[in-house]
Amino acid sequence: MPDESNGWTRTIDLPKPSLDDNRADADRLKAALKSAFNAETIDIDLSVLKKLPTRLRQWGYRARCLCFNDYGRWRLIGIKTPTDDTPFLGIAVDLGTTRVVLRLINLDTGEEMAEQAFDNPQIEVGPDILERIHYADKEGGLKKLNRLIIDGLQTHIERICRDAGADAGDVYLMTVAGNTSMVHLFMGLAPGGIIREPYIPVVNRPGLIPAASLNIDIHKDARVFVFPNVGSYFGGDLISGILYSGLHESDKISMLVDVGTNAEVVLGNRDWLVACAGAAGPALEGGVSEIGMTAAPGVIDQVRIDPKTRYFDIHTIENQPAKGICGSGMIDLVAQLFLAGMLDIRGRLVTDAASERVYESNDERRLVVADETTSATGEALTIGQADLDSLIRSKAAMYTILETITGYVGVTFKDIARFYVAGTFGSFIRPRSAITIGMIPDLPEDTYQSLGNSSLGGAGRLLSSRAAMDEVERIYQNITYLELNVNQEFMNRFSAAKFLPHTEAAHFPSVHQVC
Amino acid sequence: MPDESNGWTRTIDLPKPSLDDNRADADRLKAALKSAFNAETIDIDLSVLKKLPTRLRQWGYRARCLCFNDYGRWRLIGIKTPTDDTPFLGIAVDLGTTRVVLRLINLDTGEEMAEQAFDNPQIEVGPDILERIHYADKEGGLKKLNRLIIDGLQTHIERICRDAGADAGDVYLMTVAGNTSMVHLFMGLAPGGIIREPYIPVVNRPGLIPAASLNIDIHKDARVFVFPNVGSYFGGDLISGILYSGLHESDKISMLVDVGTNAEVVLGNRDWLVACAGAAGPALEGGVSEIGMTAAPGVIDQVRIDPKTRYFDIHTIENQPAKGICGSGMIDLVAQLFLAGMLDIRGRLVTDAASERVYESNDERRLVVADETTSATGEALTIGQADLDSLIRSKAAMYTILETITGYVGVTFKDIARFYVAGTFGSFIRPRSAITIGMIPDLPEDTYQSLGNSSLGGAGRLLSSRAAMDEVERIYQNITYLELNVNQEFMNRFSAAKFLPHTEAAHFPSVHQVC
Repeated sequence: MPDESNGWTRTIDLPKPSLDDNRADADRLKAALKSAFNAETIDIDLSVLKKLPTRLRQWGYRARCLCFNDYGRWRLIGIKTPTDDTPFLGIAVDLGTTRVVLRLINLDTGEEMAEQAFDNPQIEVGPDILERIHYADKEGGLKKLNRLIIDGLQTHIERICRDAGADAGDVYLMTVAGNTSMVHLFMGLAPGGIIREPYIPVVNRPGLIPAASLNIDIHKDARVFVFPNVGSYFGGDLISGILYSGLHESDKISMLVDVGTNAEVVLGNRDWLVACAGAAGPALEGGVSEIGMTAAPGVIDQVRIDPKTRYFDIHTIENQPAKGICGSGMIDLVAQLFLAGMLDIRGRLVTDAASERVYESNDERRLVVADETTSATGEALTIGQADLDSLIRSKAAMYTILETITGYVGVTFKDIARFYVAGTFGSFIRPRSAITIGMIPDLPEDTYQSLGNSSLGGAGRLLSSRAAMDEVERIYQNITYLELNVNQEFMNRFSAAKFLPHTEAAHFPSVHQVC
Repeated sequence: MPDESNGWTRTIDLPKPSLDDNRADADRLKAALKSAFNAETIDIDLSVLKKLPTRLRQWGYRARCLCFNDYGRWRLIGIKTPTDDTPFLGIAVDLGTTRVVLRLINLDTGEEMAEQAFDNPQIEVGPDILERIHYADKEGGLKKLNRLIIDGLQTHIERICRDAGADAGDVYLMTVAGNTSMVHLFMGLAPGGIIREPYIPVVNRPGLIPAASLNIDIHKDARVFVFPNVGSYFGGDLISGILYSGLHESDKISMLVDVGTNAEVVLGNRDWLVACAGAAGPALEGGVSEIGMTAAPGVIDQVRIDPKTRYFDIHTIENQPAKGICGSGMIDLVAQLFLAGMLDIRGRLVTDAASERVYESNDERRLVVADETTSATGEALTIGQADLDSLIRSKAAMYTILETITGYVGVTFKDIARFYVAGTFGSFIRPRSAITIGMIPDLPEDTYQSLGNSSLGGAGRLLSSRAAMDEVERIYQNITYLELNVNQEFMNRFSAAKFLPHTEAAHFPSVHQVC
């Protein structure tokens, strides 16, 4: 038997009609559902109403019902006979700019049935969200971007169901978490206001939308819940991530960081939540250096340098010949170069100490990361000072954002009991290396916890837990969004953070012990 | 300038976005609408959301908005620039079993622009609602009945708009009042439960339904409000009628009667409302006697008989040669026959006193209503004792229902300050005649007030008045529906009421003064 205690489905026994109880079918069912779900009102679509009279009588006034709570207004979405063993299915979606991930969930049991990911087909228009937003301003642009993502989702909804031996027609509920711009493109809403001062989204709380009005072809009565965004730069993916982390339920102060081109940060506990977001630069994701790549076979993801011999122990994904380096590899590389004395505190390559690997070319100092014998191309993989500088600016921006938000709230890094690192990229970062370069605070390593795809995790949790909906609302209501003012104080902090690990040695005692 | 103080449209000035006020477009608009309409929440469909960003900016953050309140949950239905002079249109519908009436209303001004009526196309399946309900049980039956009424409405919506020089695409709101069965057929809901013990409708409060999901092709974001029914035998047309009468707002006790095959009665004041409905028989509508007809040219609608000379002064509609008699004509006829001594107190034709007009045929006593010189057919129009008995049973049922409901509440007829007679048929009845035959209580004639089509009137009022929505809800919540038990007491009352005007002479002092 499924555990119905906290899910969105319930098996309901209705009192049979009589002359003494001649309530309408809808009223009879609503009363039972209100009591089962502790709901004040239940809405029922006309299409669902139409099925009631025949079905309730055929089923002897017993029904398995799927309801969902849309900000306090409940809705009956699906109804089956208890002897029908086809499940109510749900799909959680992490609607990423680059990658979209789907998780298929049995709403009766909460069981995760399958997961699939695909590249966001809007990349065809532009890999960068900014390009897409500009494209959406053009005639027919928004329509095309909307169709790309909807068609992509439709294809993969059908595929994930087929692969799991299920039927897309049994999908009654979807939860979608994405950044504000992606969510706008998904709903066909013009995103132009998001990137132009004063940065206005069309909507913050889209709520529960008929799948049909989004042109998603699943069960015809299905609804899609879109996670709310707090503003243009704090999307529903973060709300979903907070939900997944549990940060909002702890009595201790935690921080959640989603590291990427845009660093999104949440600080708080069960009583208060402060969030901010700021540009950290794409260098952290490894996307911009000459040899930067996203994780794939042959990509360098770990680097060790023996501080004495300066021997480079390079690890590539699936141990393939090296063809590039990902973001976590870059952080490792810079940390190890610094510890081996091959980078100075300003992040400059040191020539004399590492003469075999460091050379000058076109007035730029460069480092051989993997020589021609270990590289996949037959030529040495090298990295220039400019790319290293770019990474250091990004890590400095990241650290400055963390300093600013804690400073705003009036807490210190030491007050942070748990530091969640979200995102697929976040799950590859080794905290020790990130601390060494001064990207994240010098806290005990077990303070750091990688969340993986927390946006998907939260969307999935909402499909299996009624309580999660109240949490989403509480998170949304509790959160204070802090506009990052890039003022003189911010710039001073940023300048100090551009050193390795920082100009203030006292901020990073564990690093200075080693050096 | 339209008076916006109590309508559903408002012109809204929004504060312009700035870095200090970077709410989402939807939030900005919702806040202004909440304040303008005194609403707690405002829902906005995705299709309306999509228009916001471009329009708000083009219009300088000024907009004329149409909202509607669906049981406390407000919804933005339409948005135009204040300089757009096309109106928001609404259509009120009285969804009668026999006749459907539409009224086109300018929602900005409340102005009634046009009215049109058409025969309910479901008559093709059966003139009687019972036949239709049985037909709906058959394969494809419900679909056909639903299509007939929707297609009929669509045709006449387009026609009423065209005739008024308007565009059906500007119709954003409809209000529909009908009996429970008609409303079910209109929504495509199986009506079978309504007529079978224990008499269960599918739904009592359909609320606000997207016009598109009803397959009504008006503005694509349009909504249709369907008046709630209290049960199988107390439809939204009555709720709408109460709204129109104002009975629910008076401190004095009033009664509202919709006379027809099914007599529907409401008794109450601003504090309480009791309703009941019972079969009065079709005789009151003139539909079942051999010469019975609904009102049309040549139909007898008034009868005067000189009590001394027994001269029959017969009035026909449009003074055409007589071809039949309508319900109000029948009531007049029976009253006048009784006053002239041509009917005894048991309602039997008296032979000796009126020998020229009363004769025996096939063992039945018959009366010549119009001789061959005044009739349209060249043959005398006659009525038999059986048809007179049938009318008397109907009037007795009607009076018994009124006695029962007042008795239930513990008031007397004298406590009734206002007696509303609803329905097209009701507007033809002369209270003096109805009192004379003992169909309605012996109250001063000015107590009686004909309401005309109160169902349409209430539906129209709801389109021009926000306050009316709260009244609908209050009426619905306040009303107690009394199941008429046809028990011994009812039968005793009924037997006593089968006399002219009644066995208890004291109940009808004004009639006995005359006799």
